[in-house]
This record gives sequence, C-alpha cells and structure tokens, in this order.
Amino acid sequence: MKFDIHAHILPETWEDLQQKYGYGGFIRLDHFRPGSARMMRDDGKFFREIQENCWNPQAILRDMDEHKTDVMALCTVPVLFNYWAKPNDGYDWSRFLNDHLAGVVADNPKRFIGLGTAPMQDSALSIKEMKRCKEELGFPGLQIGSNVNGKNLDDPEFYAFYEAAEEMGVSLFIHPWDVMGKDRTEKYFLQWLVSMPAETTLAICSFIFGGVFDKFPALKVMFAHAGGAFPFTVGRIEHGYYARPDLCNVNNVAKPTDYFGKFWVDGITHDPDALRYLLKIIGHKKIAFGTDYPFPLGDLQHGKFLTEMPDLTDEQLRYLTHQSAFDFLGIDPKKYL
Amino acid sequence: MKFDIHAHILPETWEDLQQKYGYGGFIRLDHFRPGSARMMRDDGKFFREIQENCWNPQAILRDMDEHKTDVMALCTVPVLFNYWAKPNDGYDWSRFLNDHLAGVVADNPKRFIGLGTAPMQDSALSIKEMKRCKEELGFPGLQIGSNVNGKNLDDPEFYAFYEAAEEMGVSLFIHPWDVMGKDRTEKYFLQWLVSMPAETTLAICSFIFGGVFDKFPALKVMFAHAGGAFPFTVGRIEHGYYARPDLCNVNNVAKPTDYFGKFWVDGITHDPDALRYLLKIIGHKKIAFGTDYPFPLGDLQHGKFLTEMPDLTDEQLRYLTHQSAFDFLGIDPKKYL
Repeated sequence: MKFDIHAHILPETWEDLQQKYGYGGFIRLDHFRPGSARMMRDDGKFFREIQENCWNPQAILRDMDEHKTDVMALCTVPVLFNYWAKPNDGYDWSRFLNDHLAGVVADNPKRFIGLGTAPMQDSALSIKEMKRCKEELGFPGLQIGSNVNGKNLDDPEFYAFYEAAEEMGVSLFIHPWDVMGKDRTEKYFLQWLVSMPAETTLAICSFIFGGVFDKFPALKVMFAHAGGAFPFTVGRIEHGYYARPDLCNVNNVAKPTDYFGKFWVDGITHDPDALRYLLKIIGHKKIAFGTDYPFPLGDLQHGKFLTEMPDLTDEQLRYLTHQSAFDFLGIDPKKYL
Repeated sequence: MKFDIHAHILPETWEDLQQKYGYGGFIRLDHFRPGSARMMRDDGKFFREIQENCWNPQAILRDMDEHKTDVMALCTVPVLFNYWAKPNDGYDWSRFLNDHLAGVVADNPKRFIGLGTAPMQDSALSIKEMKRCKEELGFPGLQIGSNVNGKNLDDPEFYAFYEAAEEMGVSLFIHPWDVMGKDRTEKYFLQWLVSMPAETTLAICSFIFGGVFDKFPALKVMFAHAGGAFPFTVGRIEHGYYARPDLCNVNNVAKPTDYFGKFWVDGITHDPDALRYLLKIIGHKKIAFGTDYPFPLGDLQHGKFLTEMPDLTDEQLRYLTHQSAFDFLGIDPKKYL
C-alpha cells in the first residue's frame, strides 16, 4: 500500500482576483493549450508552467494507478497561500480553495485526502477556517507555509492557531515557501534547491528553540522534503545549543535531538544513502511517503528508489510507504483498503 | 598526526580603522580584562566576546598541545574580511592581516601554516595580494568568503582571481559569512546554525552550476563546515539538474554528483553518523580535519568524536586527521614531522 502525503493540486480556474479583491499580486492560470497552463502573476510575469495533472483529478488518478499509489493527500500549491493578501480576502480565498479540494475528495473518497489551507495572516480567521476544514469538510490536516509574511513559525501570533490545531486534532504539514535568501538564489533554480531546504531547517529550528513543541506537545507536525538540511546539520545545531545557551536556549527547551520523535518528515531525499542516514537518526516511524507530485522537482517515480532499496525491512517499508503518513493524520489505513 | 585546516586568529590590536580610512563599519577590539576582549562594531554594537586563544599564539599552542594537534592552518575571522570597504582600504587591511599572520607562522613554522586574505572587492588588488601571500609570505592558500558584497562565487568578476589562483597553485578555503536570509535568522544563533550551512551550500552550487569547477579544473577549493547542507541535499540538487535543465544547466555543466572528488570539505559535523554519511558520498580523501577553533561553535574537543569512531580504518583516519588537509594545500606531511 502506498499513501503519498505530499502532493499538490489547484482548481482548473478561478475568478480574476485582482478584480475581485481590488489589488494585484495574485497568480492566475493561462490555459494556453489543452492540458497545459501557465501560472502567471497578475503583473504578467511568468511563474511556472503546469500540466493537466496539476488540476484534473482524472489525470492524477491515472498517474496514481500507473505508479500503484493507493491514496494521495492533496494540498494547494504554496504560491497560492496568498498570506500577504488582506485578511478577509485571504479568508475568502482559503474557503474557495478548501471547497474545491473538498469536492475533489468527495468524488474519490477512497483515493484522496484533503489537507486544507488557512489564512495565516489572521489568527482568528485561520482558526475559524481550520475548524471548518476539520468539522465540515472532513480534512484531517492543513498545509501551512514555513513562514507568514516573513514571520517565523515561533511567533507568538501563531500560538492560538497551534493551540486550536492541537485541541481539534488537526495535523499540520509544513511546506517551505517565500524562501529565505531569495535575493541570493535567483539563478540555477537555487530558490528550490538551496533556499527551500534552508527554509525548512529554519522552520524546524523555530519550533524547537521557540519552544513550540514544548508548548503544544500533542500538536502533530510534518516537515516537507525530508526536513530540509536539518537532519545533516543537527550535529552543528545541537552543538550550538550547548555552546551558546544564552542565544539558543532562551525558552528553556530540551536539546535539539530530543525532539526527534516529536515530528514527522516526508522521505523525499531522491537518494538511498540520504534516506538511510535519515532512517538512522529519525527512524522509520517518523518518515512518511511523499512525492511533491506533480512538479518536476518531485519524485515522479513515486518512491521507486525506496521500494528498490534492498536493505529495508518489511516493517520499515510499511511505515515508509504508508503507515507513517496515516499515523501523522491519525487515520487507520484499513479505512482505505 | 593531526593537522587542523580550519582555525581562526586575529591580531591582538590594530589601528582605529574609522580614523585611518575615514568612515565607519569596522570591528575593533576592546580588551576589557586580561585574556578577554570584546569585538565591537565601531558604532558601539557588541559582536562577540573572544578569549586570548583568538590572538595569542602561545595560548593557541597550549591548546594544540593539550589536544595533540601537530599543525594548524590559521586564517582570519570572516567578519574582518571587510570586503565592503573601499578597494584600496581593503587592500591595505589585507596586507596588515597577512603580515601579522606571516609573523605568527615565522615564529612557529613547524606548528602553523597561514591562509591569507585578499581584498575580493577588487579583482586586480585581490590578485596582487594573493601573489604576495604566495611568493613573499609563503602562504599555500587563502581563505575567501562565500560571497563578496552579495555577489555569489560564480560571478565572472572573480574569474581572473580563480585563474590566477589556479596558475599560482594557491588553494582556496571557502568560509560562509555575510549570510543569506540573515533577516530571518536573527534569533537563537540561527545565523550560525541555519544560514551558514545554507550559505556554504549556495557556494558549492554556485561553483557547480556556474561552471567554475569546469573553467578552472586545477583550482583547489575546500568548503567549510562539512559542505553545509550540500551533502544531504545533493539528491534534491541532482534531481533539479535533470528536472529543470533550462534553469540549472545554462552553463553546460556535468551532473552535480560528478563534482564529488573535485573539492574538499572539512569534517566538522559534530556527529559520527553525519560523518559516516559524508564519508559514503564524498570519501575520506576529500574530508579534511578541521575544528573552527577557537570559537565555541567549533569542535573544541579537536576531533575527539572522529578519533573515537570504532569503524574507521587506519587509512581513513590518516586522511581524516591530516592527509586530506595536506593534499588540499599541496604540502608533504613529512615537512612537519
């Protein structure tokens, strides 16, 4: 059984948001030929070309069938978070995306699970929409960005959201976006290759050193892309904790490695050796199957590298292909057999 | 035998640079009590406290003896690069630092090796000072920053410098500084724990995707702190190379993993498992012994963790403790017996 926790979808069309909200900065789709669309900023700047499998559930299901993926968790594309928009507009937009996603899931409830989005620029509205996602739309979790308008995830502004997520049992999938150092990584796809893993590392460190894991011990979080650079640099981070407690430990937190076991990562390393290292330090029970489908930087072989690793035990494979992802969402896999 | 390739030193005193050069922004030392000094920005802002072993060669030698380090390569503290200063002032300052370092080495030529600094803000002056470092001061290499006033290391502005380094046989030790995303990593020491490894990753990627390794195939470079996040994220980086050649491969370069073997890293992982992973992908012949001495974030146990790893072969240990560092500098270890 394969359950892909990390895949993106967007609606095929949406209203002209510049017109609707009265200001610019949004992404629109230009369906310039059948099966292909350009994501365009409304100032006319090209962002990225996407294919039908980014919006058409039937195309997604065909890919899932081809690669023997049983269940896929779908969430929006981070550039559509629009956290920078006015709160009420962000709320309206989140509702639109979540309603669309709920429809996709309702059409194929045995194949898709929805991870909603929330207007993180406003605490009250983000909680309101999270509650709707959980109680009305049936989403077991949300995807949130690694920062909100430049605010790291340890900002007290988010405490009420975390507290509500913990109480409602909403799991949080944390995805890098609006990346750090982007002025330095404009060339060679480096915003994706260098800044994104750094951004995820920053998110994990913000959770640890900001005391977020301690304040919300039952909150379930997963970090994308194998935890960014955190797993490899944790020795440095742990050493920093001991070397400069005056800087690292202002919130009376445990040592960084003590937080292994408190969070999940997806296993998107694209590399068996990196996955082996990850297994060694995080353990198979906290590594979930993910692909970042349908984007080219994703694992579009849907976990082939890991299913071909000769050294994984059946138990490890069970967790790495589906059990960890189900655990993260608190769902019994039997529901999807 | 232990040869530490990565250690920092600064002069005990220097002139008031604001007065000398006529503008501010420099670091000065405030020796506020015997054996301790504060590094202060000349606007009065505190940067960091240091101890005697940051400037006193006798204190350094005592620590080396205690930890059985035979030879140490010394270079300046990156915050003293002063690349932002006017070119002639940067040149003057580099000469001052290099002359000081040459004196330290001359006093203990069997224990210290100098890695000079150059005014990278000016191509001609940087080459001129590099030549002096090599030919007059006897330095086998230089330390340079991971960027120069925000310019990444693939900037054509640096080609002439690389070409000259290659011709003269000057090895380059690349140290993160002036880090990417620093506005997001102000808390919890994260400029050191998150931004620095990202900065080093960016430097390696700039060398690869910018075609620097290809253009200067005999140039010898080493990246600090175990290559930052590069080793763990190389699967993602390699996948990006294939997924988006339009962005990653504008310079007709080989695939990223093909550059393993072309550069060295120091082994400062602070963690045996991370070092094992590094050995697996980079190999012991390209991992040098380093500590980042004398700073608290450095390995102030001087390689204890690696000498205690039971699974390293004698051959691996030989490279990890000294041979790789000597190879990087093109020096026969017998000279230091």
